[in-house]
Order: sequence, then structure tokens, then C-alpha cells
Amino acid sequence: MSDPLQMHPDRLLPAEPATRNLARQLYQAIKDLPIISPHGHTDAQWFASNDSFTDATALFITPDHYVFRMLYSQGITLEQLGIGSQEGAAAAADPREIWRLFSENYTLFQGTPSRLWLDHVFAEVFGMQVRLDGNSSDTYFDTINAKLSSDEFRPRALFERFNIELLATTESPLDALEHHASIIDSDWQGRVITTYRPDPVVDPDYDGFKDNLIEFGQLTGEDTSSWRGYLNAHRTRREYFKRHGATATDHGHPTAGTENLDAQQAEKLFQRVIAGDHSPSDAEQFRGQMLTEMAAMSLDDDLVMQLHPGSYRNHNQSLYERFGRDKGADIPRQTEYVQALKPLLDKYGNEPGLSIILFTLDETAYSRELAPLAGHYPSLLLGPAWWFHDSPEGMRRFRQQTTETAGFYNTAGFNDDTRAFLSIPARHDVARRIDCGYLAELVTEHRLTETEAAEIAVDLTNNLARKAYRL
Amino acid sequence: MSDPLQMHPDRLLPAEPATRNLARQLYQAIKDLPIISPHGHTDAQWFASNDSFTDATALFITPDHYVFRMLYSQGITLEQLGIGSQEGAAAAADPREIWRLFSENYTLFQGTPSRLWLDHVFAEVFGMQVRLDGNSSDTYFDTINAKLSSDEFRPRALFERFNIELLATTESPLDALEHHASIIDSDWQGRVITTYRPDPVVDPDYDGFKDNLIEFGQLTGEDTSSWRGYLNAHRTRREYFKRHGATATDHGHPTAGTENLDAQQAEKLFQRVIAGDHSPSDAEQFRGQMLTEMAAMSLDDDLVMQLHPGSYRNHNQSLYERFGRDKGADIPRQTEYVQALKPLLDKYGNEPGLSIILFTLDETAYSRELAPLAGHYPSLLLGPAWWFHDSPEGMRRFRQQTTETAGFYNTAGFNDDTRAFLSIPARHDVARRIDCGYLAELVTEHRLTETEAAEIAVDLTNNLARKAYRL
Amino acid sequence: MSDPLQMHPDRLLPAEPATRNLARQLYQAIKDLPIISPHGHTDAQWFASNDSFTDATALFITPDHYVFRMLYSQGITLEQLGIGSQEGAAAAADPREIWRLFSENYTLFQGTPSRLWLDHVFAEVFGMQVRLDGNSSDTYFDTINAKLSSDEFRPRALFERFNIELLATTESPLDALEHHASIIDSDWQGRVITTYRPDPVVDPDYDGFKDNLIEFGQLTGEDTSSWRGYLNAHRTRREYFKRHGATATDHGHPTAGTENLDAQQAEKLFQRVIAGDHSPSDAEQFRGQMLTEMAAMSLDDDLVMQLHPGSYRNHNQSLYERFGRDKGADIPRQTEYVQALKPLLDKYGNEPGLSIILFTLDETAYSRELAPLAGHYPSLLLGPAWWFHDSPEGMRRFRQQTTETAGFYNTAGFNDDTRAFLSIPARHDVARRIDCGYLAELVTEHRLTETEAAEIAVDLTNNLARKAYRL
Repeated sequence: MSDPLQMHPDRLLPAEPATRNLARQLYQAIKDLPIISPHGHTDAQWFASNDSFTDATALFITPDHYVFRMLYSQGITLEQLGIGSQEGAAAAADPREIWRLFSENYTLFQGTPSRLWLDHVFAEVFGMQVRLDGNSSDTYFDTINAKLSSDEFRPRALFERFNIELLATTESPLDALEHHASIIDSDWQGRVITTYRPDPVVDPDYDGFKDNLIEFGQLTGEDTSSWRGYLNAHRTRREYFKRHGATATDHGHPTAGTENLDAQQAEKLFQRVIAGDHSPSDAEQFRGQMLTEMAAMSLDDDLVMQLHPGSYRNHNQSLYERFGRDKGADIPRQTEYVQALKPLLDKYGNEPGLSIILFTLDETAYSRELAPLAGHYPSLLLGPAWWFHDSPEGMRRFRQQTTETAGFYNTAGFNDDTRAFLSIPARHDVARRIDCGYLAELVTEHRLTETEAAEIAVDLTNNLARKAYRL
Repeated sequence: MSDPLQMHPDRLLPAEPATRNLARQLYQAIKDLPIISPHGHTDAQWFASNDSFTDATALFITPDHYVFRMLYSQGITLEQLGIGSQEGAAAAADPREIWRLFSENYTLFQGTPSRLWLDHVFAEVFGMQVRLDGNSSDTYFDTINAKLSSDEFRPRALFERFNIELLATTESPLDALEHHASIIDSDWQGRVITTYRPDPVVDPDYDGFKDNLIEFGQLTGEDTSSWRGYLNAHRTRREYFKRHGATATDHGHPTAGTENLDAQQAEKLFQRVIAGDHSPSDAEQFRGQMLTEMAAMSLDDDLVMQLHPGSYRNHNQSLYERFGRDKGADIPRQTEYVQALKPLLDKYGNEPGLSIILFTLDETAYSRELAPLAGHYPSLLLGPAWWFHDSPEGMRRFRQQTTETAGFYNTAGFNDDTRAFLSIPARHDVARRIDCGYLAELVTEHRLTETEAAEIAVDLTNNLARKAYRL
Repeated sequence: MSDPLQMHPDRLLPAEPATRNLARQLYQAIKDLPIISPHGHTDAQWFASNDSFTDATALFITPDHYVFRMLYSQGITLEQLGIGSQEGAAAAADPREIWRLFSENYTLFQGTPSRLWLDHVFAEVFGMQVRLDGNSSDTYFDTINAKLSSDEFRPRALFERFNIELLATTESPLDALEHHASIIDSDWQGRVITTYRPDPVVDPDYDGFKDNLIEFGQLTGEDTSSWRGYLNAHRTRREYFKRHGATATDHGHPTAGTENLDAQQAEKLFQRVIAGDHSPSDAEQFRGQMLTEMAAMSLDDDLVMQLHPGSYRNHNQSLYERFGRDKGADIPRQTEYVQALKPLLDKYGNEPGLSIILFTLDETAYSRELAPLAGHYPSLLLGPAWWFHDSPEGMRRFRQQTTETAGFYNTAGFNDDTRAFLSIPARHDVARRIDCGYLAELVTEHRLTETEAAEIAVDLTNNLARKAYRL
């Protein structure tokens, strides 16, 4: 027999009873506010085509690197999980058997946010009443698949059921945005917008960078072998993204490094880079210079910049060679911001029209660098706890280490940052609960009044994201 | 209508009722102990002249970089705040209007220590009964100004009302200390002592370093163009500071680097530095060597050393050019201590007569480097949570991350480190409440007895500072 | 009169009453489980000879660097503590007087784990009923000494009384393991196993490295002046250690650096190193290459690897010169893992047969590097909070910063890592209490059920260590 599955109404709220009461009141008042998801990685095609999702395994396991990295860490191979290698020989595993392997190892996720998100989806979206384990595996698989094939579980229906006000996806400059166009042209009212993520044409180390630049030129009619033409291509494409709803750009760099080269130096660097004749430090410098160029363009077109630095991508070399990118082997590294951002900030840091949202995978920067920077520069805001730190503990650390110096109003609300569409309500719910718990603690310590806390809770849930992302 | 303003008697004490009861008892027993302020930046002239403070804006906004950095981060310009540029064109803003701008944006400070300190001053020093906001702005401005003009609000009267046993200021070796002399010569009994802060004549990157050295020579009658004369000038000036009450020196370096050069190397380095013919690493090395020289002098004259490393000063280049130093743009950086302090410690670390108080802006060093160093070397003590970390959360992190390895008795009590004289009682009150809360938690966890906690609370409040600063 | 000494049954459990109740239930169910101590530094001779321990001072002060480093930090010299210098002149201090000095300064340990451990031993092992202080010093000294001379306090009797299932010691490859052999040959059933700690023949900076290599060759009959012979000597000696119970190796490197040189490069590096003709970076590279070689051997002989990086050994130069190693002057440093481990992981990181347990003295790596690495690579597990971080706060930080990403099942249970044999039950008891408190908090926040928490508590106490160390 499997254990009962129950999402307790007080989950994640502080244990101390008076504080929990306060937190519960704060949470009750904001729990039904719409979801604003200004940064994430869902697939616009889902909402364009509105086709049903395939099955439980394809929905929950194969695409979720949080899930399969944990299974992999305990000796389960990617082949066993049906994750295809690049060598062509597609994994032939049976979805039901993969689901069983996951179910039997579900205890590995105890104490992790994945377990919170998954249980929430299982209970609230699919109505499951027992815990996932080996015994309940088949019931889960059959129940989920049956529901997925119904109209109520098509992407647009779920979007509406989830009360999503806005959902941003992230696309390469080379993306035609046909799905966004199709959504705009449809009679469906859901707001699914794109985000300009230029890494494939900005990072000299990106797979196929050289070919990407050629395609970038073809798409925009610019000569992307010249520095001027290359920059114009960005301007053109940013405008195209804006017409498909974009209000922001996103930059996923190894470091937070920026540069402030003069036009001649930049041109020479660009020529080395496109010739493939560049050193690792040239590549780093080029990425850094492009952040400053993007800031300049943002001053013209009002797109908000997001900077996501600090991940060592594809750390597991043999896995990368066999299975490609995004296989759960991205590992955070120490990230320096104070020196790194100075060239960009020297040039544009005081511009009232510029808005840069900073993220980190290095939590030591919260109190030491990020809150002091955002608590001074008018152009800087802090994005929420990100990726590995998008957990109850990580969210608490974020508030406890940034509020003292940056306050609440130099932060940008919550991001779910996910490709797991069904987990979006679960993720926002966790953030709302943690924020309400934090605010309740400030009230219990007599640092805020209840009235103030209630107002801040609404701001953290909706208003800060709307303002930061210019929605 | 503005909200009521009330300083709750249990503020900042732990939420759990039994722990809160214990904390309250501990706090009651120490809350009225005298204030010892062995490190800060108030102006000795206030106590020498005993003139009234000007007005609310000049007292609370213009000089407080915690306050105006937050306003600046949200797009309010320094000109709007009446902070004059160096270009001469004095800001013509009306103090009442500046106060209104501050009042209307006071919600920005929710959750920050500035809000705690300001509310404390407003309520306890000025008797305000409603929260500061746009509605109460004029009442605040008029009430504060009226009180400031009364005799009860002159600096000496406040010093006595605040129950300050000792207040240390910080001066350049080039300061004549006339205000300290005047206080000593007066019939007023308040103890306002100086601290020897030699950065202007020790840091080759300091504004006017070369002229400073010339003046240093004139003041001391030493030939400060020779290494020997330069060191003698320090000895002479330290002695002068001691006669004006100093028991300590203070060193605000970019890093914690120290050096142990022989006399010949040091002489050569000094010659490069005073010729202006030095590299950045020469400057770093010179500052490091001077820490070791200062330690040697401390062994002779018993002045306690304070080391405050890790701030990137004046990070905002254009603001610095337009408005000068100390405009809220100092940002902490990663700070290494283990390798950095070794040269000094190799030479003097085991000297029983030497006392060095270490501070940090990099909290990661607490458990990793600073507590292990202070828990071994007889010459090292830990200063309290500093600057950006001088918040309830920051103080808790300090205790939670240093006590396990360094205990309580390798720490140096509390510093308010402020130029905001009126906030001194508020800041000490926050520290006392956080320390009592921490001790109460140790009692609730049965790690200390109530009797022990009560004794430690007195030590943290008074005795450790007296001992560490040789008062 | 001394204060009463009482080990409260609820000590270290969370303050909030409902959470404390849960924690108490979890703790009651696991508190009497056997002690598994798979990593430590006790002396096998104690259990081989089963001689009585000498006296309280020799047992508690002279060998415990946690104790004497704190006393030293407050100006008590090593000579006063009877710790002999290497210069030959043995300290002549009277053990009773040393004990008195310790007793009179016992308040220095308030708030530290040493105080928890010592009080536990005093109360639970020796039955003391008053706190140690100047008044009770002689009673303590006499009572402890009298008990130590009784049969019930001989090492084997205590081992059994402590309910130790397994105790691992750590030996150099040059150790004859005669005491382990003697224990195996005896009729005593206690399981005391060795661990292969090759630092003396792997670290070119180790005292006597060159002589060690010669002895290493003599012991194994291999030509340790050739790379091939040197590697064979390791293989031979590892096999010898396995026959004396070893299931693991241990590596105490300054950094986590690894290398992946080809045989020719490695041979050349080895020749430079044994010629003494190596740079500091050669030494670092050699240690790093040897970690990779050790991993290769582990794949053959199944020994688990432990990596303990990040300590700056013997930081206090003059103390080291006068008193030698291990005098409380080892200081943690920043430690990078992501780049450092990549060469080894590129080669063997996906091997299902390899198991590497990672430790850290740099807690910033928990959430940023270590949990993400262990939550992905099948070959990596996380060792528990170590050394300076082996405190209630340190253990809480470990769980709060690793569980979210690595879960519970990529961790390796508790290590006491001690040479203080009598403190082993105290240390395991602290870990059990902190783990039960953490699990109770997850239950109170409705993130785990009580049933799940109870199962995890047993795993953390026994099963994870058995599995990780292949016991």
C-alpha cells in the first residue's frame, strides 16, 4: 500500500504558531493572484498548436534535468531513462518501465524542491491521493495519461486553469517566432511572449557560432561579417522580438564580465572572433563587450536586460559527447560581480532608462556584492533565487541576505525559470509561501506592521514583476 | 492619516515564546548599561562647540550614505537630495522639500536596519507617534527642527542622555585634534577620544598622498622623504594621538594583505612610492608593509590595531567625479585573510602584547578563516558585524558562524561605526537585542545555563569592548 | 561552589514545542543504534594493548588541538599546557596544575562544540555532577584518574560500553599495522580497521618525503624510483591495508586539484619530484595526478576514496618550528571544486564502481559546487560537516545547504574524525540530535511525513555510512 498524498494547507509556513497564523493570513490574501511568469523555458509551440501532451514519462522525466540528474547520481543511466544519445541509436525504453524506475526511486527526492513541485502537480493537477512509489506507479501512469488526452489538459486549458496572466519564453535570435506569431494571430487570449536570448550569436564558444552568424545575416539582411552590420542585425532582430511581445533580453554567460572597448578595439576583437582566431580571453572579452552593447541598445528600445552568469555548462565531458547539452551536468561556480560589472556600469550604470536584472548561482554574492550594488545603482535590480537555489531554503537565504541592504523594492519578483509547464503553479506557490513566512517573521519581530506586510506580499507576488519587466 | 509609530518592547527578540521570555529577561538586565562606542565617525567638533544641530534634513539625510544610497537606487538624484557636487554649483534644494521626498519614499527602507534605527530615533529621541510618510512629513520636519534648537538637544546633552561612557572618533594623522583638545580642556566630563587612522599618509592611492606626506613632515618635524623619518613621523604622531585619548589605530585597506620586507627592501619600496613611480602592486605591497610596521609600533606604544579591509571605494566613477568620496558607492569584495595576514603574523602573531581586531565585509570568512584565526592566534580578536552586515540578520550570522570556533571571548564587543550620532543608542540597542536573542536560543537548546547567559550578555555589552580597546 | 552539571534530555533539539516533540520521538528511536565511525584518528595501539589511559590531562588536553588552540588564543602558552617542544626540553608542567589552568579557563568554551563534547564525557562517562571550574578542578582530576585506572575504563571496555560497531583509524602506508594485526589475531571481537592515508608518500612537501619513498620501496619490494615501481608499491600496500580491514583511502590535500596526465608526462613529473627538482606547481600537479591514479586503483581494489582538501597546515610558523605539526594552527582556505575535480571526473566520474567522498572546510561550496556535483555524478558522495564545521550550527548549515540539491542519499552519514576516543559517543549524539531536529522541521513544514522522517533518521545514523564505506 502506498502512503496517502496530501498537500497540507500550512506547508512551508514557519513552525512557530503565532508566526504561522500571520503567514497563513498573508498567504490567503495573495494565493489566488494571477501568475506572472516573466522568465522561463516552456515551448511556445504547445500553446500555438494546443496539442495534448504525450504521456507521463515524456512530460515529467525526459525533459526535466532536475529529475534525471538525481536518478543519474544514484547510478541509473540515461539510457534506462529513455534519454536518447546523439549517436543516433534512440533509446528504446518503454515509457511505463521508465516511469516505474522513477517511481521506485522517488524517495531520492525527499527534502528537495522537485519533490514539492511534483507532489503538488500530482495532487492538485491530477488529483492523485496516494504517494508515488513502486506500488502506485502503474496507477499514476495510467491516470496521468488518461487525463492528458482530455481537452481539459490541453496546454491552453491548463494555462487558463493555472490563472497565468503572462508567460515569457526564451528564444534564440535565429528563431522565426512562428509559434508566437501564430498565438498572436489566433483568437486565444493567453499572453505568451518571447525573450531575446542572443547567446548563440554572442558567445564565440557556442555550438555552431560561425554558422549562426551567417544565418543571423540572412535573417536580417545585414552584413554580419562587419562589426557595424553585426550590431545592426541585433537591432533589427530585437525589434522583431519586440513585435512578438518581448520586453526583455536574457544573457547566460559563464561570468559577469563586461567590457567598455572603443569602437576600433571592438571591431578588431570582432574580426578575430569571427575568423575563429581568438583566444579564450578574447571570447570572454567579446561576451563582455556584447553585454555593454546590449545595454546601449536597451537604452534605445527599452528592453530590460537579464544577466544569468556563473554556470559551468556541460561539465561531464563524456556525457556531453554522448548525449549533448542540458543533461544535468551544469555546475555553478564562484562568480565575481564588483569588478566584472564596472565597465558596463561606468558607461551606463546611472542611466535612468536602463534596467538590468542580476541573477546568481553563487549565493555568497547576495549580501557581499549584489545587494550593495542593487542598493546603489539605479539601473540594477536583483532577480530571485535561481536554479539550484530555487528551493525553500534558497529563497529564505535570498530574502535574509538581500533585504537588509537592498530592501524589497530593488528586487524583481519571482521567476519560475522552468520548462516544466505543469509545475509553474507549484513553483509560484512555493515562492508565495516562503515570502509570506518571511514577512510574517518580520511582523512577529515587530519590524513591519501587518498592514505593511500585506502590501509587500502583493508587490512581491505581482507588482514587482510587472514593473521590473515593463509588462 | 499616517500609521501609528510604536517601538514594541519585544522587537527583534526570537518569536518562540519560551525563548522570547528568556531573551527579554536577559535584555532587561543589560539594556540600561552605558554605551561604549570605541569605533565610529562622529565629529569631535560637535562636542567641542556644543552648537545645536541645524535641521532634520542636514541631520538625517545629507550625511547618511545608508539613506541616500537607497533613494538613489530608485532613481532619486543626489541633486534632488541637496547633496552638493564638487563642481561648485551648490544644490539649491529646499530642506523641507528634501525631507518630503525622503518621507514619501520611506517605505523603501522596510526590512532594512536603517528603518529600525530611524524609527527608534524618531520615537525615542523626538517622541514622534505616527510613522513617517507623505502625510506626516511636515509635522516631522517642524517638530524635529524645533527640538533641535532647544538646549536639551545640543550634542553634550544628548551624549549624557544617551548614557555614553566613551565615544571614539577617527582622525587623519594630519588632523590637529583641536576639538579633542578643547573637550579635554573644557569642564565637560564626556569622554570623546580620537583614533589614529593613517590611510591618508599610508595609502599611495589616497587623494593628495604626496602633499599629505609633506604636511606630515611639517607637523612632526621629521624628514618624511626618508623611510626612517617617515616611520618616526608615525611614532611622533601616534604619541600625539595617545595624548588626545587614542587607544587604537584604524586601517581601511582594500585587502588584508600584509608584508614582511627587510629594511632595505622597505626603503626602496618607499622611495618608489613617494616618487610616484609605483605600480598598483607596489601600492598594495606598501600598504601591507605599513600594517606590519604599525604592528611593530603598537608593541611599543600599546595602541590596539583595527583592520577594516575589503571595500571597493567609490565604485561609481561618474558619481565620484561629480560628487566626490563617500556617496554610497562603496561595494564589498571577496577578502582573503589566511595568506594575506601571514607575513605580519609570522613576525608578530604570537606577541602577547599585540592586539589586532579584524573586521570583514565578506561574511564567508567568518567560519572559514576569521574564527579559526582568532581561535588560535593570541594577537587576534574579531570585530563585530560591520557596515552592510550591521543588521539583525548580519549580527545573527556573525554569532552563528564565529562562536563555534572562536567562542565569545575572542570577540571585541559591539561597534556602531557611525557618523549618525543620534542613531547610536538605536544601533547599540539592536545589537543588545540580537545578542540576547542568540544567548536565549543557546539556553533553550540547553547549551548554556541562564546564569552563564546573563554573565555573557554583560560581557558582550560592556566588558569585551573595554578589554579589547584597553579602555 | 560549582554549578550543577546536567545533560538535558532535550538538548540541541529545536525550541518550538511541536517540532521539539517530533524531534524527540525521532531521536528516541535512533539514539541507541550502534556507533559506526568510518573515519577517525584514534590510536590502534590502545585497543591492541588495552592499557589504561594515563590521566585526565594526557587524555583531554595535551592531544586535543580544539582544546589547546582556544587556550592558546587567550595567551596561555603551550609550555604551560605541558605540550613539549621539538627542541627536546620536555615541558615539566605538573598534570594537576595543567588541569587547573584548563578548569579555570573552561568558560572560554561556552558556545563551542568542545564544551558540548567535554560536558557529555564528564557527565555520562565519568558521572560528574558539577560543572568544571576552578573549584571543582581537583575533584575532577582525582575522580577521572581513579576511574581511568579501573578495568571498566580500559579501551576495549569503553569500546563495548560505547556500542561501537566499527572504528576506522588512519595510517600512513609506512605503518606496519602491527596493532591492527594484533587486534585481528586477538580473541577480542571489536572491529578496528585501518584506512590508507598515503600523504607521506604522495605529497612532495611532506616532511621526509624522500626518505619516505625509500622506505616505501623497502616495505613493498618495489623500485620506488621508477614511476611504474612507485605505482606498484601503492597497489601492494593498498592490498596490505585491505587485509587489515581497510575499506577506504584518505587524502588530505591543500586543494581539490586533480590531473589527467598521460603516462609519459606523469613519469617526467615523478622524476622531477623525486629528484627534489620541482616547483610548487609541480608539487600541486603531482598530488593532483596521484588522486587520479588512486581513483584508477580504487576501480581495481574497491577501496572508497575520501578527499579532505582546503587546510593551510601549520600556519603559525614559529610555533611550527618550536613544537611541530598539529598544534592548532591549521586554518581553512577557499576551496574550488568544479574546475579542480574535472580532470579526474573526465576520466572516471561516470564509473559505477568508483566512490569518492568529498569533504570541505569552505562551506560556501555546499550549495554552489558540492551538492550540484554530488547530485549529478554517480561516483561522488558528500561527507558530513568537517572539523571546524562539526558543530551544531555547522551540521545544520550542511543539511540546509545540501539537501535541496543532493537529497539525503548522496551523503555518507556521520564521521567523528577524532583522536579523542572518549568523545566519540558525544559527537555522534550531537549529530543524531541535529539530524532529528532538521527532519522534525521538515515534518512540521509538511515536507516529509513522520514515517519518512523516521526511516531517514535510521539511514543517516547507520545505513548511509555502511553503504558509503562498503562496510
